[in-house]
Amino acid sequence: MSITTQSNKNRNVLYAQAGGVTAVINASAAAVIEAVRQHPDIFGKSYAAINGIKGVLEEELVDLSQLQWVDLEKMKHQPGAVFKACRFDLDPLDHNPAQYERVLEVFRTYEIGYFFYNGGNGSMVTAQKVSDYCRSKGHEVQCIGVAKTIDNDLDLSHCSPGFGSAAKYLATSFAEACLDIYSMHETSTKFFVMEAMGRDVGWLSLSAALVTDIIPDLPLIVLPAERRFDKKRFLEKIDQHIAQKGYCVCMVSEGLKNEAGEYLSIAGIEHTHERDYTQLGGVGKTIAQLVASHLGCKTHCAIPDYLQRSASHCVSEVDWKMAYGAGKAAVEAALRGEHGTLPVIQCSEKTGHSIQWCYQSVELEKVANLELKVPDEFLTKDGMGVTSDGLDYLRPLIQGERSPKFINGLPNISPLNLETVEPKLTPFQAMK
Amino acid sequence: MSITTQSNKNRNVLYAQAGGVTAVINASAAAVIEAVRQHPDIFGKSYAAINGIKGVLEEELVDLSQLQWVDLEKMKHQPGAVFKACRFDLDPLDHNPAQYERVLEVFRTYEIGYFFYNGGNGSMVTAQKVSDYCRSKGHEVQCIGVAKTIDNDLDLSHCSPGFGSAAKYLATSFAEACLDIYSMHETSTKFFVMEAMGRDVGWLSLSAALVTDIIPDLPLIVLPAERRFDKKRFLEKIDQHIAQKGYCVCMVSEGLKNEAGEYLSIAGIEHTHERDYTQLGGVGKTIAQLVASHLGCKTHCAIPDYLQRSASHCVSEVDWKMAYGAGKAAVEAALRGEHGTLPVIQCSEKTGHSIQWCYQSVELEKVANLELKVPDEFLTKDGMGVTSDGLDYLRPLIQGERSPKFINGLPNISPLNLETVEPKLTPFQAMK
Repeated sequence: MSITTQSNKNRNVLYAQAGGVTAVINASAAAVIEAVRQHPDIFGKSYAAINGIKGVLEEELVDLSQLQWVDLEKMKHQPGAVFKACRFDLDPLDHNPAQYERVLEVFRTYEIGYFFYNGGNGSMVTAQKVSDYCRSKGHEVQCIGVAKTIDNDLDLSHCSPGFGSAAKYLATSFAEACLDIYSMHETSTKFFVMEAMGRDVGWLSLSAALVTDIIPDLPLIVLPAERRFDKKRFLEKIDQHIAQKGYCVCMVSEGLKNEAGEYLSIAGIEHTHERDYTQLGGVGKTIAQLVASHLGCKTHCAIPDYLQRSASHCVSEVDWKMAYGAGKAAVEAALRGEHGTLPVIQCSEKTGHSIQWCYQSVELEKVANLELKVPDEFLTKDGMGVTSDGLDYLRPLIQGERSPKFINGLPNISPLNLETVEPKLTPFQAMK
Repeated sequence: MSITTQSNKNRNVLYAQAGGVTAVINASAAAVIEAVRQHPDIFGKSYAAINGIKGVLEEELVDLSQLQWVDLEKMKHQPGAVFKACRFDLDPLDHNPAQYERVLEVFRTYEIGYFFYNGGNGSMVTAQKVSDYCRSKGHEVQCIGVAKTIDNDLDLSHCSPGFGSAAKYLATSFAEACLDIYSMHETSTKFFVMEAMGRDVGWLSLSAALVTDIIPDLPLIVLPAERRFDKKRFLEKIDQHIAQKGYCVCMVSEGLKNEAGEYLSIAGIEHTHERDYTQLGGVGKTIAQLVASHLGCKTHCAIPDYLQRSASHCVSEVDWKMAYGAGKAAVEAALRGEHGTLPVIQCSEKTGHSIQWCYQSVELEKVANLELKVPDEFLTKDGMGVTSDGLDYLRPLIQGERSPKFINGLPNISPLNLETVEPKLTPFQAMK
């Protein structure tokens, strides 16, 4: 563990958000802000960067003292990223040293002694780079990661803040759709598939199996990204379910690959500064069409897309608490003098539907860019179902409800009106 | 108005559900059952048919006395159709007289004096046919329709039970996704489209405009089924929004047609007994791809599909009350001696977010198979936005929340365990 011993008294704080949002990322933001405010003897001014590290480079900063209690309370149930989140990473140092010099310039100008970066495993690379560079130049900033990702692929963590809420939303929606199909399949749709996010990990697709807790004999097929799609065995299983129950429901990972290891469905290629992301989406439709032509009957497909990562009206209370706790734990890590670390979730007790957890710091470099896949023991032998071990893991993460208040029929959510600080430096264009 | 004067004392009741489900159809079912139970002096035994008119033909009936208070309470928040809903209509009488004879045989055997058919405008044709035939044969059954459809296309009714909840779900989900896009568009997705159900009517697509109540300057485009898609003007509007706001969001009707009057996206053809339904779906993807290639940037598309008609966790209280009231009004119509009628919703007062309504019976034949389109005054001149008149109409329908209780992290919903009666007649196969 890296511990700094120098006095950081009254040095300033910078918080930023990066990567795909979750329904609870702003609970982490509120937690960082609230925890920092509890220590006016240690922390100086607090800032947030707009658009993550891009906002740092472009000196697009918000003075957080403008946020009142009412803003923080609202923020805690707000989807999206209140300070905007970027899909933008720093280039490697030798490719683009100017970026690093600029970050340092901004940090020095605003006397940033604490940098909290709220993101997934990709964003932790950025936090690590910033930490390393600043220290190599004698600016002792404490960079601490704040975990989030709906994908649940953060290594060394029992689970990722954001996952539980997405899983709860998917399981709830899927349960409702299952009752729809159940009640109409005799004269209409016999196969329904829903597409879950998850590039190379199938954690979210597993949430469908939670529905067996309320519909025990559900004719369900799960197609997680970890298993190659075996068309023959899939269609055999379809036939079996249709013969027994008259209908079949399925949850598929957007990143499902065929036996040759190619994605079944690619929506496009997203070019970012540092790398190309293959944009996935539409595999549900591919599966629905396959089954329609196999069975010669009506099939339907739902693609919730961003809805699953933004459904603040269907948040898991456990997940919300984990997200809030992740922000608080990051500030506590800073208070302990850590730098280059990420507080991850350690499960201390788990029975039935309940879970106790704590946060333990790990080195950023140990989680950066790693990807935690669904373990074999969570999947049935045929790879198309979830074991009781898998269900035991999932259940505690979707417990409890925590929604924004509804006003006039709609959730009380809207962009915060944030004023950015007057720039002190020469302009810098992050994306050319 | 058709009024029967004969004594129906102690004749039995039959209730059935038909057509695409809504999140509140079972509130109507519970209302019929509860209202009937309040008049043991008038009504005899109560039955429900499984799978609508198909269950009548096949003598698949449920004795409703088995339903306890707790079942009715659960049913009131249950998605799907608890008695199963059919996509099956009776053939024309001269094509298939055997069907009509069978319905009459079942009605006579079970001494059915009241038939409540819960469905959309298509199902009202079936109710009408049954009513006409039975009366022509001297069996004085009182057929009363119970309105439901998420499409909101029932003519002569201020709105349709089921629509408000679907609109609330779509507006809520869309609002959440809009904050997602808003917070990430500078480095990621710049255009997001969501596909709403609605074959030839765009009512549900209009719900996106409700989000302007919480995000007033939302760069929104609405593409309702009532307006032909004008690619050039659409892309111009996209460019305008992107230039002003940096992003754009859109809600499109699944039944959007091009300037030649052809559906932009057809998922398949569904062959039913009486007619072929063109199965729509996927127009959102078409629009997303068009914008992606026009802007050369990342776009995303959500297709909630069945989720929007089954989202019991996001039900509008006003809609729920309208659905419950529709069931109650049907029983009251029966008590008044009506037959061949449908109680529709009359708006008696509407101010801001609130609405007062009552039910008024109309002849079934006046609404059967008609389709109420979005009126011109609800759409802006360019056809891509909703006017303040449109918003004034929509707002009251999404007010209030009414969700099932969540138990262990999931809504307390599951198929009811219903025992069907021992058949008394020779088997009859409805679908050959």
